[in-house]
Amino acid sequence: MQSKTPQQSLTVYTDMVLPSETNPIGNMFGGELLARMDRAASIAARRHSRRIVVTASVNHVAFNKMIPLGSVVTVEAKVSRAFSSSMEVYMDVFIEDRESGERSLSNEAIYTFVAVDEMGNPVRVPELVPETELEKKRFEAALRRKQLSLVLAGKMKPKDATELKALFQ
Amino acid sequence: MQSKTPQQSLTVYTDMVLPSETNPIGNMFGGELLARMDRAASIAARRHSRRIVVTASVNHVAFNKMIPLGSVVTVEAKVSRAFSSSMEVYMDVFIEDRESGERSLSNEAIYTFVAVDEMGNPVRVPELVPETELEKKRFEAALRRKQLSLVLAGKMKPKDATELKALFQ
Amino acid sequence: MQSKTPQQSLTVYTDMVLPSETNPIGNMFGGELLARMDRAASIAARRHSRRIVVTASVNHVAFNKMIPLGSVVTVEAKVSRAFSSSMEVYMDVFIEDRESGERSLSNEAIYTFVAVDEMGNPVRVPELVPETELEKKRFEAALRRKQLSLVLAGKMKPKDATELKALFQ
Amino acid sequence: MQSKTPQQSLTVYTDMVLPSETNPIGNMFGGELLARMDRAASIAARRHSRRIVVTASVNHVAFNKMIPLGSVVTVEAKVSRAFSSSMEVYMDVFIEDRESGERSLSNEAIYTFVAVDEMGNPVRVPELVPETELEKKRFEAALRRKQLSLVLAGKMKPKDATELKALFQ
Amino acid sequence: MQSKTPQQSLTVYTDMVLPSETNPIGNMFGGELLARMDRAASIAARRHSRRIVVTASVNHVAFNKMIPLGSVVTVEAKVSRAFSSSMEVYMDVFIEDRESGERSLSNEAIYTFVAVDEMGNPVRVPELVPETELEKKRFEAALRRKQLSLVLAGKMKPKDATELKALFQ
Amino acid sequence: MQSKTPQQSLTVYTDMVLPSETNPIGNMFGGELLARMDRAASIAARRHSRRIVVTASVNHVAFNKMIPLGSVVTVEAKVSRAFSSSMEVYMDVFIEDRESGERSLSNEAIYTFVAVDEMGNPVRVPELVPETELEKKRFEAALRRKQLSLVLAGKMKPKDATELKALFQ
Repeated sequence: MQSKTPQQSLTVYTDMVLPSETNPIGNMFGGELLARMDRAASIAARRHSRRIVVTASVNHVAFNKMIPLGSVVTVEAKVSRAFSSSMEVYMDVFIEDRESGERSLSNEAIYTFVAVDEMGNPVRVPELVPETELEKKRFEAALRRKQLSLVLAGKMKPKDATELKALFQ
Repeated sequence: MQSKTPQQSLTVYTDMVLPSETNPIGNMFGGELLARMDRAASIAARRHSRRIVVTASVNHVAFNKMIPLGSVVTVEAKVSRAFSSSMEVYMDVFIEDRESGERSLSNEAIYTFVAVDEMGNPVRVPELVPETELEKKRFEAALRRKQLSLVLAGKMKPKDATELKALFQ
Repeated sequence: MQSKTPQQSLTVYTDMVLPSETNPIGNMFGGELLARMDRAASIAARRHSRRIVVTASVNHVAFNKMIPLGSVVTVEAKVSRAFSSSMEVYMDVFIEDRESGERSLSNEAIYTFVAVDEMGNPVRVPELVPETELEKKRFEAALRRKQLSLVLAGKMKPKDATELKALFQ
Repeated sequence: MQSKTPQQSLTVYTDMVLPSETNPIGNMFGGELLARMDRAASIAARRHSRRIVVTASVNHVAFNKMIPLGSVVTVEAKVSRAFSSSMEVYMDVFIEDRESGERSLSNEAIYTFVAVDEMGNPVRVPELVPETELEKKRFEAALRRKQLSLVLAGKMKPKDATELKALFQ
Repeated sequence: MQSKTPQQSLTVYTDMVLPSETNPIGNMFGGELLARMDRAASIAARRHSRRIVVTASVNHVAFNKMIPLGSVVTVEAKVSRAFSSSMEVYMDVFIEDRESGERSLSNEAIYTFVAVDEMGNPVRVPELVPETELEKKRFEAALRRKQLSLVLAGKMKPKDATELKALFQ
Repeated sequence: MQSKTPQQSLTVYTDMVLPSETNPIGNMFGGELLARMDRAASIAARRHSRRIVVTASVNHVAFNKMIPLGSVVTVEAKVSRAFSSSMEVYMDVFIEDRESGERSLSNEAIYTFVAVDEMGNPVRVPELVPETELEKKRFEAALRRKQLSLVLAGKMKPKDATELKALFQ
């Protein structure tokens, strides 16, 4: 199976915030953004694997900025690391001010997907080879996040999470 | 401001999985469940605070079970800890088998909300007083999660996250 | 087939009123509430019967209160009586004021469902055994409603509707 | 205020049954049809009154036929009687077989609407003058239905519902 | 195969403009109207052919009037000409002012559909026989539009489009 | 007002085809694609003008390929020419085969938007300066399309449409 670069899975999803997606003070629901990110990230994971993919987990997501009604929201998703049958997808979410057109980073998010066959059984995916500095940095950090995920799920003892442990010393 | 119990914010959201919410192998999209959980959790946060609430962050969420088309999905959300203007909401998600009616835990999830006024400024919320053993356990762990969240956001140094650090020693 | 209690089919569906569900003066569309009640009631009927269920009829429904945008609406549905293959489901709908959190009864509604097999043929359902005073009262009245339904459908002569006739004498 | 005929409020709503609107055996959800009827009927009531209208009640509705995925469903709504500020709307629902094109009556339904001003206060509506035999018959029966509605709501004693009482003697 | 008249495929689709379908200045999205017209036109094409139909092309559509939130929009669609396996559908779109009830033509639109079998292969459709003056005029013009469509698609040389060429001389 | 390049308005909208968007033979509804294109194109027009934009017209659109359920559809929109207050937006729509990942052009489409102020009055937009060969070619052709549009709307006599007339000689 031939390895791929993050660029090969790049998925861009640009859409506006509509009235039915906003809360009483006119900002986009967090849940709506979570759902849009899931769609963009799952397309990226499918582009990498060319298989059916299912959401396995969502990393910690922080909503730092309110996104007002009428904003243009762009989700840019790329696979950041591939494991045997799972893929970590890293997303940058940008919003544009309606008038100035100024674009700013709204938040980042990380979802993990598993590639499966028609029966739902995991299948192998191609390796990911990062190219840019940022891609390499995210690739490295993915291992730490994987350990954190295993620790949180009770599938790895904190003391065995060597990558993670180093952080706290 | 009078303190409240988790039970006072309990929100139950029961609904079926419809065809428009499923992937090619007939299971519910992760993004759809993330959005439903956001709705249930935000109602719980509003019941606790009686204010407008906005999603501040989503803790790590793992999707351990596939949820097939036609399943009945129940999200049970309760505030698990209140900070000055933010609230952590803990959710248990159950699915029922269509034929046997057997109910099983699909996954747990934790979202954080901030209570705001009409201008979007944070406002104080009542304290939370846990009652049951489980509520107390979740209340304790909330502090650890808050530290993890601050560390991940780069707002606290890992070495200052005393609660969290203890885990890795 | 073992009989069940109303409590065993209790289904709670809590959700907010969103902008896309309101009329020009900012209140929830009647049709939207009718659809939500159908979803909650059908889950209750399925929990009682563990079969596919189809809506057979909707009893008279009165909308006594306007439900403003942003309200939290809770539909609580329980099977109130089971006949050979049909089930009457009784619903209480509550709304909460956004600020005070005060909960009040918005309206009641009664839907009837038929349990069917994969071909759409009616199948037998378990008996219902009411427990509380209210459940018993609703169980009794269900027979009168069934007669009214048959009379309205022209399938029973008014003079044979003994339960109903008694009302007008 | 000039009186109007039922024909002047005739509203025709034709649409297909889509996959997202069907249950596990491929038939349209009852709740979806209830919502479509509410939209069609409210337009008819608005055409009669030229005011904002809100759903006041839904008469007994029976679903006699299953409506399969892909069917063309036509709702034809006309105001059947106007009271001081309320209007009864009578609907005939037709379905067409996909292949033969044969059209058959699926069910009838009756909704009641109240005309209101921008504050939500009831306002007077024009009188309705029925023209055809069928329109006259439905106009007559509307009074009986109104009494039944009042009796069911506990706002009229059964013995005072003269029109209705006659039915049972 | 028996020929049909335009009247036999007449499809009327009346619905309101809801908040979730409007842009920042409170008017209906063009894309939403395009989608409604596709639904209405496809039903008309199906009524003419009694087959599965797929959208083949959309003629030039001009949006001459803004359609404000709360308007009643009526799409009236009729097959205007049938070719071997394709059908041109002509639509008139009307809007009604909420208060005066005045009805005005919002725009016209022309979509073309192809009738197909379960495999997606084109199948023959009945001939269309126009009856009224307007239907005859639209029937004639359909040929010119078909030539324009072929020219635009590069499937016919402009000089061979005799009907169309005449226009420019 | 500073001129802009097509690249500055490039909008990419990538999404999957879901079950609720497909016809009985499992292909995407034409109307759904028309609506998605309207969203993408309106964002491109807004990026060029930084104003509220409303759809003015849709050029002839041909649907040459069926787009099966589960396909990834990418709409790429760029402003192709700016007139005083209107903008032509040119879109290329690509689909990807689920398994091979092969990407092919599904169709092209051209929409026109008008920039307006909060009152709905047209406002001036920046000039567009094409850069690539393809952008220049589309820029040129835009004038011809504008004439065709005016001719079809009866606002220009065919004999005065010099650019267009040349085509037929």
